[in-house]
Amino acid sequence: MKVLTFGELLLRLSAPGYERLLKKDYLNTTFCGSEANVAVALSILGIDTVFLSKLPKNEIGYQAKRVMNYYGVDTKEMLYDHGRMGVYYLEKGISQRPSKIIYDRKYSTFSQIQIEDFNWEKIFRDITWFHWTGITPSLSDNLIQVCIDACTYARKKGITISCDLNYRSKLWTTQKANLVMDKLMPYVNICIANEEDVEKIFNIKANNLSNETTKIDRRSYKEVAQKMCEKYCFQYIAFSIRESFSANKNSWSGILYNGLNKQISNSSKYKIDIVDRVGAGDSFAAGIIYSIMNKKGDQEVIEFATALSCLKHTIEGDFCEISFEEVECLMKGFRNGRIQR
Amino acid sequence: MKVLTFGELLLRLSAPGYERLLKKDYLNTTFCGSEANVAVALSILGIDTVFLSKLPKNEIGYQAKRVMNYYGVDTKEMLYDHGRMGVYYLEKGISQRPSKIIYDRKYSTFSQIQIEDFNWEKIFRDITWFHWTGITPSLSDNLIQVCIDACTYARKKGITISCDLNYRSKLWTTQKANLVMDKLMPYVNICIANEEDVEKIFNIKANNLSNETTKIDRRSYKEVAQKMCEKYCFQYIAFSIRESFSANKNSWSGILYNGLNKQISNSSKYKIDIVDRVGAGDSFAAGIIYSIMNKKGDQEVIEFATALSCLKHTIEGDFCEISFEEVECLMKGFRNGRIQR
Amino acid sequence: MKVLTFGELLLRLSAPGYERLLKKDYLNTTFCGSEANVAVALSILGIDTVFLSKLPKNEIGYQAKRVMNYYGVDTKEMLYDHGRMGVYYLEKGISQRPSKIIYDRKYSTFSQIQIEDFNWEKIFRDITWFHWTGITPSLSDNLIQVCIDACTYARKKGITISCDLNYRSKLWTTQKANLVMDKLMPYVNICIANEEDVEKIFNIKANNLSNETTKIDRRSYKEVAQKMCEKYCFQYIAFSIRESFSANKNSWSGILYNGLNKQISNSSKYKIDIVDRVGAGDSFAAGIIYSIMNKKGDQEVIEFATALSCLKHTIEGDFCEISFEEVECLMKGFRNGRIQR
Amino acid sequence: MKVLTFGELLLRLSAPGYERLLKKDYLNTTFCGSEANVAVALSILGIDTVFLSKLPKNEIGYQAKRVMNYYGVDTKEMLYDHGRMGVYYLEKGISQRPSKIIYDRKYSTFSQIQIEDFNWEKIFRDITWFHWTGITPSLSDNLIQVCIDACTYARKKGITISCDLNYRSKLWTTQKANLVMDKLMPYVNICIANEEDVEKIFNIKANNLSNETTKIDRRSYKEVAQKMCEKYCFQYIAFSIRESFSANKNSWSGILYNGLNKQISNSSKYKIDIVDRVGAGDSFAAGIIYSIMNKKGDQEVIEFATALSCLKHTIEGDFCEISFEEVECLMKGFRNGRIQR
Amino acid sequence: MKVLTFGELLLRLSAPGYERLLKKDYLNTTFCGSEANVAVALSILGIDTVFLSKLPKNEIGYQAKRVMNYYGVDTKEMLYDHGRMGVYYLEKGISQRPSKIIYDRKYSTFSQIQIEDFNWEKIFRDITWFHWTGITPSLSDNLIQVCIDACTYARKKGITISCDLNYRSKLWTTQKANLVMDKLMPYVNICIANEEDVEKIFNIKANNLSNETTKIDRRSYKEVAQKMCEKYCFQYIAFSIRESFSANKNSWSGILYNGLNKQISNSSKYKIDIVDRVGAGDSFAAGIIYSIMNKKGDQEVIEFATALSCLKHTIEGDFCEISFEEVECLMKGFRNGRIQR
Amino acid sequence: MKVLTFGELLLRLSAPGYERLLKKDYLNTTFCGSEANVAVALSILGIDTVFLSKLPKNEIGYQAKRVMNYYGVDTKEMLYDHGRMGVYYLEKGISQRPSKIIYDRKYSTFSQIQIEDFNWEKIFRDITWFHWTGITPSLSDNLIQVCIDACTYARKKGITISCDLNYRSKLWTTQKANLVMDKLMPYVNICIANEEDVEKIFNIKANNLSNETTKIDRRSYKEVAQKMCEKYCFQYIAFSIRESFSANKNSWSGILYNGLNKQISNSSKYKIDIVDRVGAGDSFAAGIIYSIMNKKGDQEVIEFATALSCLKHTIEGDFCEISFEEVECLMKGFRNGRIQR
Repeated sequence: MKVLTFGELLLRLSAPGYERLLKKDYLNTTFCGSEANVAVALSILGIDTVFLSKLPKNEIGYQAKRVMNYYGVDTKEMLYDHGRMGVYYLEKGISQRPSKIIYDRKYSTFSQIQIEDFNWEKIFRDITWFHWTGITPSLSDNLIQVCIDACTYARKKGITISCDLNYRSKLWTTQKANLVMDKLMPYVNICIANEEDVEKIFNIKANNLSNETTKIDRRSYKEVAQKMCEKYCFQYIAFSIRESFSANKNSWSGILYNGLNKQISNSSKYKIDIVDRVGAGDSFAAGIIYSIMNKKGDQEVIEFATALSCLKHTIEGDFCEISFEEVECLMKGFRNGRIQR
Repeated sequence: MKVLTFGELLLRLSAPGYERLLKKDYLNTTFCGSEANVAVALSILGIDTVFLSKLPKNEIGYQAKRVMNYYGVDTKEMLYDHGRMGVYYLEKGISQRPSKIIYDRKYSTFSQIQIEDFNWEKIFRDITWFHWTGITPSLSDNLIQVCIDACTYARKKGITISCDLNYRSKLWTTQKANLVMDKLMPYVNICIANEEDVEKIFNIKANNLSNETTKIDRRSYKEVAQKMCEKYCFQYIAFSIRESFSANKNSWSGILYNGLNKQISNSSKYKIDIVDRVGAGDSFAAGIIYSIMNKKGDQEVIEFATALSCLKHTIEGDFCEISFEEVECLMKGFRNGRIQR
Repeated sequence: MKVLTFGELLLRLSAPGYERLLKKDYLNTTFCGSEANVAVALSILGIDTVFLSKLPKNEIGYQAKRVMNYYGVDTKEMLYDHGRMGVYYLEKGISQRPSKIIYDRKYSTFSQIQIEDFNWEKIFRDITWFHWTGITPSLSDNLIQVCIDACTYARKKGITISCDLNYRSKLWTTQKANLVMDKLMPYVNICIANEEDVEKIFNIKANNLSNETTKIDRRSYKEVAQKMCEKYCFQYIAFSIRESFSANKNSWSGILYNGLNKQISNSSKYKIDIVDRVGAGDSFAAGIIYSIMNKKGDQEVIEFATALSCLKHTIEGDFCEISFEEVECLMKGFRNGRIQR
Repeated sequence: MKVLTFGELLLRLSAPGYERLLKKDYLNTTFCGSEANVAVALSILGIDTVFLSKLPKNEIGYQAKRVMNYYGVDTKEMLYDHGRMGVYYLEKGISQRPSKIIYDRKYSTFSQIQIEDFNWEKIFRDITWFHWTGITPSLSDNLIQVCIDACTYARKKGITISCDLNYRSKLWTTQKANLVMDKLMPYVNICIANEEDVEKIFNIKANNLSNETTKIDRRSYKEVAQKMCEKYCFQYIAFSIRESFSANKNSWSGILYNGLNKQISNSSKYKIDIVDRVGAGDSFAAGIIYSIMNKKGDQEVIEFATALSCLKHTIEGDFCEISFEEVECLMKGFRNGRIQR
Repeated sequence: MKVLTFGELLLRLSAPGYERLLKKDYLNTTFCGSEANVAVALSILGIDTVFLSKLPKNEIGYQAKRVMNYYGVDTKEMLYDHGRMGVYYLEKGISQRPSKIIYDRKYSTFSQIQIEDFNWEKIFRDITWFHWTGITPSLSDNLIQVCIDACTYARKKGITISCDLNYRSKLWTTQKANLVMDKLMPYVNICIANEEDVEKIFNIKANNLSNETTKIDRRSYKEVAQKMCEKYCFQYIAFSIRESFSANKNSWSGILYNGLNKQISNSSKYKIDIVDRVGAGDSFAAGIIYSIMNKKGDQEVIEFATALSCLKHTIEGDFCEISFEEVECLMKGFRNGRIQR
Repeated sequence: MKVLTFGELLLRLSAPGYERLLKKDYLNTTFCGSEANVAVALSILGIDTVFLSKLPKNEIGYQAKRVMNYYGVDTKEMLYDHGRMGVYYLEKGISQRPSKIIYDRKYSTFSQIQIEDFNWEKIFRDITWFHWTGITPSLSDNLIQVCIDACTYARKKGITISCDLNYRSKLWTTQKANLVMDKLMPYVNICIANEEDVEKIFNIKANNLSNETTKIDRRSYKEVAQKMCEKYCFQYIAFSIRESFSANKNSWSGILYNGLNKQISNSSKYKIDIVDRVGAGDSFAAGIIYSIMNKKGDQEVIEFATALSCLKHTIEGDFCEISFEEVECLMKGFRNGRIQR
């Protein structure tokens, strides 16, 4: 079992604590990126994971590579070239004040990737699972083709393909997203999404799924899941569900729909005091991948993914530094946070 | 439209995080002062604002001036002289442990201001609104006279005058405050207060307005407002209302009484996880000034002031670093703090 | 009135904020140890307190001694020898993620203490109260004997003896603990415990006292207290009761059982936002000792101990930096954390 | 007297202390840019200074503007647009290890400036001195035209024009630089340069001016200065001269050549323990501008510029936070750094 | 042997590293004061030391007291009253940029001391050495009388009296200093001074002792010493000699003149890379006191004092955290700073 | 080409900046250990490197492993067991104050290694170079046997063996060291040492090689080298030579003796401003290994090792974060530390 994830690696620059952006004279740094986050989460859970990306040929790129190695992720297939590292600035919110992100990822080395950069045969040797997200094809037309190439090759080899829809309105329009993702979905076995992605990309609506409501109508999720599975023959579609009470207090749960037996499984719900919620969706995806790879039953799959990503909220940075034992402990009901001496 | 605020600028020295005072070997610094806070809040909202004060003629005073400029506040009228910067030490509380303030503001350059220091004609040129608080006249007898001079001149010129009562028991007795403020109130058009100020200074009691109760009797506020408006012919009197559950969890709302039509307007109520509550009252005052200046209706005035000062609680330091767009966003009901990408 | 506490002094190395252990490139340091914590708490409350221990003869040991002096604790009886300082590593949890402790205290200078190191006559001169905890005899066989020697001498001199059971499963088995503590309990006048200690050490069960339940059955506490007092003729046995909702939100209360009149006294209950809960039990013990020494009534004893240790939760580090005035203020009902200007 | 400087404002992200880039998990931030540095230095010296640039229309741009205001620089003419802030990463060297800079300034809002953005009449109203550097025209073809437009207008109005050659090999080739700067030099009254600029851009060589030598042949400077002044009719050309012993120990001096009387003036030489040398050349330019504006004699001009920029080396960040009094004190011979109580 | 030192305890607020004052948003804190520094240095060297002062009755004062205890200094005689803690702000210089101090010590609790506050009999019980400095009588007329009272009592009891002249031009004029110190000198046995004190206070000039020269004429020191000893019958007068090359590089040496045998002893000279030079003179005084108390020969006295205060320059803060062993090691010639494993 | 290094991995806890140990309330952390340092240095230079050690089976051990991966070191052969991580405390000196180290490495998991833990065939598969130091056999008798086993196996397989003598007087006596190292040396091909090691372990003296002298007699090094090579048939013996002027200023050079042709090669000498000198000897060893592996000539070998380890002195922490390009640049004579833009 060996997973390959493919996507951009970014440098995140975040204001310390709850300070306004650039008010203090330093910014905290961490590397991140949806697919890199999944790779790190899986590696910490014990899965052999390869991360494929393209990095600038300078100290920033080399440092990014080293950080992936720190988490045990294999970077032997990494590409390097002249250019810039994509960056995003983060200001963390609290109470009624929301977190804010300013992207500065345009013109990055990754976004200028070439189709010829890839030797799929070499890259996919030993790989049994391939994961990517909707962010990757949104970054350039070359990357759309690269995603198609990768999926075609992976499908041919019988590699399981998972995709987190991850719609980002700042990166592409819903029209373009629909066009591209509709072409890519047929290759996908496991689809992961949050409440907005499906509606935004595929215009498949779930009733009562407003961003603003805190009541979740679980029936409408089933309806949407069913439509998606019918259209694209997914084995599974999983939804993470966030209810926001304030910038630092959320509830978190998950729903898994099994495309084969058409059953829906609901996870436990966690009320969370948030340390850092960025990357929680990625850890949910990692939890889904991990437990499906390990042939868990549907209920366990969704419980594991939700518990893992619940704990991610307590970790500073995008990376999910949570061990299998910690997830297990939470799943067993140990929720009260007593000291472990 | 141009606002002048007049008062002392202090250096605040605060223990980091929730540490006990001087336990760690550094103190966080920020400049502050009720009237300076109002000037900064208004300047960030886009109002031309002049801050009038007197600063020590040394690097501490110059730095204070630069920080006001950073926030866009005009300091061309600033006075300088030998002497010391007033200081206060802050220890931030949490849960059942209250915040504590130790004042060291006596003998400051500002408190030793002279009546002759001021050329009111030059100072008030172009000014359309004058704001001061009850702290200023409490600092010295000279400052009482200066307040009277300023109010007299401003009133003559038809400049709107707002005053935040801001009673501080460490600075003067209720008797002295009553004597002085009673003389100054007739100049005031808009009065801003919190729950204790009116009772302490004017001995005008609102029933059931105890410090300890968390239930607010809004009728009694109306009663008090009415009495004050009748006595001093205010156009408006506004109250900020804080309910404390713990040192870091409060509810916050506001009441506006219109002295002309005798209507009362209640704001929404916000339950807040506090980052720093010092200066929240000043941002409430700024919100009242901003929205009355911009001729908003009564309900919008009190909603704006309350939303602005709600958000202030999430900002470290005394200054209200909140933009108009952020207030608007909260007023539109966006309270759940979702990330703005 | 002069208290002697006897036990190990450790160096605590803790990850900053809610970071994972050793993720950041520094560790916060503080000295600690159950009996040292009690000594510091009492000294801050105004009690003359002597701390007896053995420290490494190097800069780490000398620094530890200086820190005790900083808190006003008398270290004239301190022993020094070659060897190592015991250490523990702490990672602070939040929300569903528990705090974690890794002990590295084996082979410490203190654990290699010799029976001949002590001149009890000199040590106990002027002492009126002797406090120790179950951790001390768990560290070595020599220390069991030292505890017996100290208790024997103290009892002969009419010195009040208090013991906090403080069972630690990583330090000894329940069997060994039972054997040793059963021998030591007859010397003890005041026994302090938490919910698990009594069951683990003496196999005296309280019904419904599960770690996982958040409902406390106060009757069962009475039952257990009664059994303990009958067996060991305690003057008092006091329990601190923690209900954990999450790693950073707990309720805290206390129960005092008077062995003479067989009455039980329940304290108020506090819902706490935790800054640092390590050492809270020790501050509870200090509160019990302080108020019994000062001949308070049973209800006041348990209220004082609970209020003191409630406030300890808001202090970073193991030491209870809380003054008598602060406890009094909370006991008077000032729970809402309003700023004290 | 009012100075306008025109150029890019960048965000500098620097590794703390002497750490390797991105080794620590934060980067220190400061705003910078050659022409902004000159503006700040002049403003602190007491000159009315306007800084003209184009900033991204987001929190990063707004913060940059505020920081200029903090230093008293007028930003009323600032342009804003969508786009990115140029960034550079800095690793500070020490001993035999050199400092390193990674630029990430391509595609910035400033580099995408339009010729139509400028209303020169409005911009140059009240301006008596115009300063720019060779970095500005290197950033885009539009910026070459903008520089020509600005110089043409300024020359017509009789505004003094100063230019710091500031050749950067990463931004343009020597060929392009020669072509463009040759066209711009005839507008320039005061030219500022370091040892490499003249050779790199104009291929006018000074004998023995190697980067590696630490011996300076002052005669060759005169030769080069003479050639430049003859060719472009400069009133003055000034050179800063750095001798590097190690990354943290340099000598610093200056040479001024008067194009009218053909006399050369040499400054004192300072041996410096460096805190931060970035921006030293800009402070040298500011010193030249300040003292020529204030009609100082040639020797005083070069002494002032050298002393100011000597002191800049002791200030963290690109900005020259040095007052007139401090320069004067150093010029009077107070070099031994005794405490000023 | 027990020393009493008497003087003010201040809070020092210093900019971190080499930053300009208040540029960073925090100030480092440390307690200090010439006589407190001497007390701490002596206590660390192993001498029983009592520090007598008056502190504000608030958390700042209590914290100051605790810090003295941390260093083992006895504070049982400390006085407390309402009022403010004296403060000074420090900006540390480097290279050609000097350190700067802004005093804010006026109106302090200490300066408002009353003559009646002191019970000299109780205070001086067990004391064998009394140390004060010229700063104390400069702070108020009451303090002049208190110094006279203390000296009179001490002299009567046969207690050795040492005084560090410590002239501060910001605290009193040379005229007043002369008047007062001339009255106090006859009580003094050991006088400690730096190069300027004697000239400023007593107008006793040493040829060639300019602040600006780096050459020291040791003969002139002898001349001055002789005059002083003749006039006031000192047993010893000791001078510390600083040669400043830059703000962070100084040479340091000492001279001791024996008033009885009229011999002069010169110390070794140390070239120092400075961490913090404030308080170095006080550690020199402590070294003189320590070695005279311990009946060392003249050469050893001056070598010890110079070596101790040389090492002080490497310690951040005013306090001399240097052990006897470390001084001894340096005196033995171990100057090359090799690692001690 | 693949290197294996074998030794202990420690956690270093160091006081920040030049602070006294445990004065500040945090300690900086880094992992270290002589053989780990060599592994990291080689890996950064581009050599495939395996690090063999035994780590505690807890978060501290796991984190140590991750940090090795961060530097690209292969940890697949790492052993884990219950137990403690060895620790050392470091206080960094400056000027006349030396750095100090307190070891707390006794009883570590590594020191309790078993002979049976190793499968040499598996461990040495693909390895071409084996490096260890004298610290490893000093830690336990088991480790002596393990070193013999490893050397025997490696010699049989024709693997090059290098050893850094690294004598530590706190870990074993000269007698024991002599006994053990004399048995191990015959296996060694390349021996690395500093000035004291040879004398302390083998009692082979070089004239004039005192710790205190700063003059180096290079002839005596040749004499010693010759004796060692004759006795143990080394291919090479290399010495690093440190001259200490103060704790932060040293000179650094190297000598290489070729055992085959009996020629000696001297490196350039570097005068260094030290950031952190711990681990410099290890980087010297890494430089020797790297350049001999790459078949450089003798002069280049010693120049490379000296330049690499010169640069190490500018890096905080024990690890040599220096790239091949940086060493090359210094070797080419670029010593003046000019900014690389």
